[in-house]
Amino acid sequence: QELQPLMANPVCETTEKKKQQPQGPERPNSHQKFKAKLMQWVSYIAGDMAAFGEWMKGQFILLQILDWVLRGAAQVMFVNNPLSGLIIFAGLILQNRWWALNGFVGTLFATISALIIGQNRGAIANGLYGYNGILVGLLMAVFSNAGDWYWWLLLPNIFMSMACPIVSSALASINSRWDLPVFTLPFNILVCLHMVATGHYNHHFPQVLFQPRTSMHNLTWSELDYPKLFRSIPVGIGQVYGCDNAWTGGIFMIALFISSPITFAHATIGSAVGMVSGLALAAPFQNIYFGLWGYNCVLACIAIGGMFYALTWQTHLLALACAFFCAYLGSAIANVMSTFGLPACTWPFCLSALTFLLITTEIKNIYKLPLAKVTYPEKNLIYFWKMKKEERIAKQRKEQEKDIASQQKKEKIIMAAMEMKARQHLDACTVDVLQEESTQNRPDRKSEATELNLTQL
Amino acid sequence: QELQPLMANPVCETTEKKKQQPQGPERPNSHQKFKAKLMQWVSYIAGDMAAFGEWMKGQFILLQILDWVLRGAAQVMFVNNPLSGLIIFAGLILQNRWWALNGFVGTLFATISALIIGQNRGAIANGLYGYNGILVGLLMAVFSNAGDWYWWLLLPNIFMSMACPIVSSALASINSRWDLPVFTLPFNILVCLHMVATGHYNHHFPQVLFQPRTSMHNLTWSELDYPKLFRSIPVGIGQVYGCDNAWTGGIFMIALFISSPITFAHATIGSAVGMVSGLALAAPFQNIYFGLWGYNCVLACIAIGGMFYALTWQTHLLALACAFFCAYLGSAIANVMSTFGLPACTWPFCLSALTFLLITTEIKNIYKLPLAKVTYPEKNLIYFWKMKKEERIAKQRKEQEKDIASQQKKEKIIMAAMEMKARQHLDACTVDVLQEESTQNRPDRKSEATELNLTQL
Amino acid sequence: QELQPLMANPVCETTEKKKQQPQGPERPNSHQKFKAKLMQWVSYIAGDMAAFGEWMKGQFILLQILDWVLRGAAQVMFVNNPLSGLIIFAGLILQNRWWALNGFVGTLFATISALIIGQNRGAIANGLYGYNGILVGLLMAVFSNAGDWYWWLLLPNIFMSMACPIVSSALASINSRWDLPVFTLPFNILVCLHMVATGHYNHHFPQVLFQPRTSMHNLTWSELDYPKLFRSIPVGIGQVYGCDNAWTGGIFMIALFISSPITFAHATIGSAVGMVSGLALAAPFQNIYFGLWGYNCVLACIAIGGMFYALTWQTHLLALACAFFCAYLGSAIANVMSTFGLPACTWPFCLSALTFLLITTEIKNIYKLPLAKVTYPEKNLIYFWKMKKEERIAKQRKEQEKDIASQQKKEKIIMAAMEMKARQHLDACTVDVLQEESTQNRPDRKSEATELNLTQL
Repeated sequence: QELQPLMANPVCETTEKKKQQPQGPERPNSHQKFKAKLMQWVSYIAGDMAAFGEWMKGQFILLQILDWVLRGAAQVMFVNNPLSGLIIFAGLILQNRWWALNGFVGTLFATISALIIGQNRGAIANGLYGYNGILVGLLMAVFSNAGDWYWWLLLPNIFMSMACPIVSSALASINSRWDLPVFTLPFNILVCLHMVATGHYNHHFPQVLFQPRTSMHNLTWSELDYPKLFRSIPVGIGQVYGCDNAWTGGIFMIALFISSPITFAHATIGSAVGMVSGLALAAPFQNIYFGLWGYNCVLACIAIGGMFYALTWQTHLLALACAFFCAYLGSAIANVMSTFGLPACTWPFCLSALTFLLITTEIKNIYKLPLAKVTYPEKNLIYFWKMKKEERIAKQRKEQEKDIASQQKKEKIIMAAMEMKARQHLDACTVDVLQEESTQNRPDRKSEATELNLTQL
Repeated sequence: QELQPLMANPVCETTEKKKQQPQGPERPNSHQKFKAKLMQWVSYIAGDMAAFGEWMKGQFILLQILDWVLRGAAQVMFVNNPLSGLIIFAGLILQNRWWALNGFVGTLFATISALIIGQNRGAIANGLYGYNGILVGLLMAVFSNAGDWYWWLLLPNIFMSMACPIVSSALASINSRWDLPVFTLPFNILVCLHMVATGHYNHHFPQVLFQPRTSMHNLTWSELDYPKLFRSIPVGIGQVYGCDNAWTGGIFMIALFISSPITFAHATIGSAVGMVSGLALAAPFQNIYFGLWGYNCVLACIAIGGMFYALTWQTHLLALACAFFCAYLGSAIANVMSTFGLPACTWPFCLSALTFLLITTEIKNIYKLPLAKVTYPEKNLIYFWKMKKEERIAKQRKEQEKDIASQQKKEKIIMAAMEMKARQHLDACTVDVLQEESTQNRPDRKSEATELNLTQL
Repeated sequence: QELQPLMANPVCETTEKKKQQPQGPERPNSHQKFKAKLMQWVSYIAGDMAAFGEWMKGQFILLQILDWVLRGAAQVMFVNNPLSGLIIFAGLILQNRWWALNGFVGTLFATISALIIGQNRGAIANGLYGYNGILVGLLMAVFSNAGDWYWWLLLPNIFMSMACPIVSSALASINSRWDLPVFTLPFNILVCLHMVATGHYNHHFPQVLFQPRTSMHNLTWSELDYPKLFRSIPVGIGQVYGCDNAWTGGIFMIALFISSPITFAHATIGSAVGMVSGLALAAPFQNIYFGLWGYNCVLACIAIGGMFYALTWQTHLLALACAFFCAYLGSAIANVMSTFGLPACTWPFCLSALTFLLITTEIKNIYKLPLAKVTYPEKNLIYFWKMKKEERIAKQRKEQEKDIASQQKKEKIIMAAMEMKARQHLDACTVDVLQEESTQNRPDRKSEATELNLTQL
C-alpha cells in the first residue's frame, strides 16, 4: 500500500484508546471521579482526536472536508488534530489575514485534488494531503512581491496546491521503498518551482528578492539582544508557517501542547538548538531573531524525537544531534538557494530528518516505527513498550521451554542410565538363574520379580 | 531484465498485427478490396513497422545499423519507425546540414557503443540506444559557439555519444526498480556535462552564452503577434530536436502522424499548452515564438497521453495537467540552469513525466502499462481493451460460478429441509406402525412406501 | 546486512590466505627457501594484512583503535592496510603538520562516533568508517581561510567527523539496494555542507574563495612545461588527500604499491589520463600541474580497474573509459560548484564510478563482484578465477551427465526395441507351441528357454 508512507496510520484505533482510559475503581471518591472525567475529556481533545474523527465519518461531506483541512493545517507539525488546526488558523489570522486565506485555499484545494486523483480516503481524512497545501498557499503569499490582497495570486496558488497530491503520491512511491515519509518535500519542490519559474523580475507574479551574501556583515557581540534572543524560540516555531510574530508562535505552541506534550517539548528544544547554532556559526543576529535558524530544527527535532523513532533517551540524543545537523544544513542550503533567488524553505529539515531515519544501528533502543504504526509520540511510545513487553515474555517463555526441555533431557539420561543398570542387573540375574536352573527347577519367580523391578523404573 | 526499462518492447509482435488486418468478406466488392489493400499498406508503414523490422533481421549488418539509426532518430518522440526517422533527418537537413551530420554521427556512434558494451540486441534494434545519441550530437552542434563546420567538434561528439549507452544502462538499473523508462535523461546529463565542462570561455569547445535574467523585460501585450504565436506550435515540435524552423517542425509532425495519429495529436496539444503557459507566466514573447515553451510539453504530453498510460479520457486530462506542470517546470529549470550557463535541455520533460508516471491511484482507468508492453499508443490501447475484456469475462465467469454455487446451496438446503420433513413423517409413521404392530401383523407395506417416498425426494 | 555496502568484507579470511602461500617442496634448496620466506614476509605486510588484523583483535582497545584509524587513512584509496596508513600519515606530515593533525582527529572521531552509534564492528575494524573522517578533517583544514593552527577549527572538524558515520549509514541504506558502496560521498556532502554553511565571508570559520570563471584565460602551448607535466602524475595522487607536494604523492604511491600493485598501476594510469584530459579540454596549465585533473581519475580508475570489477582486459578498458569520463565530469562539477564557492571535492569520482558500476551488460568478462566479496584487486581476481573454474567444472559435469543420460536413454531405447523383438519372437513361439501342443505334450522346455532369453536381455 502506497499511501501509508504519507506519515500516519489511516486506521482509527478508537477501541484501543478506550482501553487506556482509567477504569473507575469500585467505589471512587469525588477526587477520583473528577480525575477520571478529566482524563476522558483530555482523551477527546488530545492526541489525534480519533473519537471525533470516527464521529465525523457520518457527517455531511463539507463538514468532513473542514475536518480534513484543519487536520491538514496541523499535520505540518505532525499533529493529526482538528482542534490544533483551528488554533493554528487563529494564529495565522493574527499574523496576516491574506496569508491565512491563501493557506486555507491551499489546504482546501490540495484536499480536493487528492479526492479527484483517487488517493486513499484514510490518508486524506488524516490531513496527509493537506499539510503541503497549506504551506504552498501560505509561503507563496509570504514570498510574493506583489503585496497583500493581490487576488491573481490565487490562480497559481490553486494550481500548485492541486499539484501537491500528485507530487506527494509520486514521492511516496519512491520513499516507500525505504519506509520513509515524504515530509514537506512536495511543498519544497512546488514553492521553489513557482518562485524560480517566475522570479523577482516577473510581470505577473514577482517574488521577493533573495541574493547571495557577497561581503562580510557586522557582528558585534556586545549588541546581542537577550530578550529578542529568547523571543526567537517561539518565533522559530512560528516560522514553520512563515510567521515572524512571537504571539503567533506562542499560539502554535499551545496547539502543539494540546495534542502532544512530547511534540511540544521537542519543538521548543529544536528552536533553542537552532538559535544556539546560529550564534556558533556567526550568523547575522537579525536572522536569528527572525527565527530563520529555528523552524527547520523544530521540525527535525519533532520528527526524530518520538514521532518516527520511539522516544528513549538514545533517540532523544539523536533528535538533538539531528537538530544541530539540521541547523548547519539550514545555513548551507540557504546559501545555495540564494544563488537562485530562493529561500531555504524546509529542505534542511527534510534532508536531515530523512538522513537520520535512514540510519541502521545495532542499538536496540533506537527503534524506528513502521510507517503504518506512526501516530503521535505518546501512542508510539505505548506501542514500543507493548512490543518490548511481548518480546520479553516471548523470550522468557522460550527460556522456560528450554529449561523444561533440558530438565526432560536430564531425566531421560538418568532414566537411560538406570535402565542400563537394571538391564545389567537383569543379565547378571539371568546368568544366575541359568546356573541355578541346572540345579533347581523353580527360578522363574525371582526372574519375574526382577522384570517387575525394571518396569517400575 | 534490465533492458526493458529502455522504453519499448524488444519482441516484435508481427503475428498479432496480422490478426488486426481486415479479414476480407466472402465476396468483396471493388471498394472493399481497395480499402483492405490500403489498410494493409498502412499497416506496413504505420506503427512500429514490425514487419519491416522482421525482414531487416536477415539483411546485411550495415543496412541493419541504418535501420536502427533511423529508428533511434524517431525514438526521441517515442516513435519506433524508420520511415519517420528518415523524414526527421530530412527535416534536420532542411534546418542545418552541419547539425544533421552531427545528429547522424551521434546516433551512429551511440548505437555502435551499445553493441560494444554488450547491450540487448532487441533494444538496440528498436533504436532505444540511438535517440540519446542523436540529441547529444545535434544539441552539441546547436550550442557550440565555434560556428558550423568546426570539425574538431566531432571528437567530443563521438566521445559523448559513446558514453550514452553507458549512462542509459546505469540509469535503467535505477529506474527499472520503479518500472520507469530513462527518457532523455542520458542526453540531458551528457550535454550539460559537456557544456559546463567547457563553458563559454573555452579555447577548444566554446559554448553559447546563457545568462540568468537580472532585470525586467518589456512586455507590451499589444505587440503580441498572432501569426507568430500560431507558428510557435510547429516550431515547438521542431525544438525537440533544437530546430527553430517552422517547416522543419511541420515535417516532424508528418513523421509523427505516419506512425501514430494519437502521438501526433498529443504533440500538437502539448505545444499549444506550452505556448499558453508562456503567456500566463509573462514570458518574453521571443521565447514563446522560438518554441522554447513548447518542446518539453510536447514530449510530456505524448508520454502521458497514450504512450505509458493507456489512453482514456482520464489519462488525456492527466496528460494536459502534465503539460501545464511541465511548462511551469520548464521555466523554473531554465532559470536555474542559466546560473550555470546552461540551457534547460529536456530536463523539465523528464522530471514532469517521471513524476506523473510515479503516481499511484485508486482510479482503474488510469492504467500504467508495464514497460515491457509499451509499443505505441494505438497498440497500447488495444492491449488495454483486451486486458479489460478478459477481466470482465473472468468476473462474469466468477459471478456465474457464484450463482451456480448459491443455486446448489439453495437446492441443498431445500433438499435437507425436505429430507428432515420426510424423516419426521417416517418417524411418525414408525410410531404409528409400532402402535399398529401390536394390534396388526402387516404394517410393513406402509413403511416401505414411506421409505420409497423419501428416496424419491 | 546493511554494513556490507561499506566497501569491504568484514570477515577476515586468513585461512584462505595461508593456502595461497607457497607450499615448500620436499627438499628445497637455499634459493627456494629464501623465496618461500620472502613470500611469507610479503604476505604479512601486503594485501589487507589480515593476519595482523586477526592478531590485533586480542590487543588493548586503544591499540586496536590506532589500527582502525590507520586502516581508515588508507581506505581512501581502497587500501585496507595499516602499514599503508602509517606511510600515508608520514606523507601528510611532510606536507603540512596542521593538516595531518586535523586528518588524524577526523579519522579518530569518525571511528569513535561509529562505535557510539552502534555500527558493525567488522566494518569499523576495516577502517570503513574512518576514511571519510580523514578526508573531512584534512580538507576542512586545507580549505579554511583562517590559516594554520587556528585551533577553533577542531570544533567543526570533530562535529563533522562524528556526523560521518551517520551519513555513511544513511547512504549505505540507499546504495545497498543496488549493491553499491558509498565511496567518499559522506565526505563530499559534509565538507561541502561545512564550506557552504560558513562561506568566505564568515567571522568564525571563513573559507578559501572559489569563484566561477568569467573570462578567457591565456593558453600558450609553447609555455607548456614538460617536467611539471610529468610531476603532475604523483601530484594528482597526492591531491586525493589535498596535498600538492610531489614527494608526498610519491610516498602515497609507495603506500599503494605495498598493499596492491594493481591498485598502484591504476592510480598512476588514472593520474596520467586526468592530465591528458586537462590538455584536451584546454584547461589552465596551473590546474593541471597542481594535480586538480588527476585525483578523481586516480580514484575512479582504481575503483573500476580491479577493485569492484574483477580485472580483465575488458574491465581495464572500462577503467580507462571511466577515468576519461571522470575527468570530463570533474571539469563540469568544478565549474558548477564554483558558483556556490565550493571546490569539486571527489564528487566527480563518486558519480562516475557509481555510473560505471551500475552498468549491466551481456559480456561475461565484465564481472562486478558482490560487495561482500570485495577485498583488494589481487584477491578479487583469485576469487573471480576460482568462480570461473568452478563454473567450468560444473558445466563439464553437467555435460557429462547429459552424455551419460543420453547414453542411458539410447540404451533404454535399444533395450526396449530388443524386448519388443523378443516379445514378438515369444508370441510367435507361443503360437507355435500352442500349435505344437495340440500334437505333442512337451513344448514347455522351449518356451522356458525363450523366457530365459528374454530375462537375460
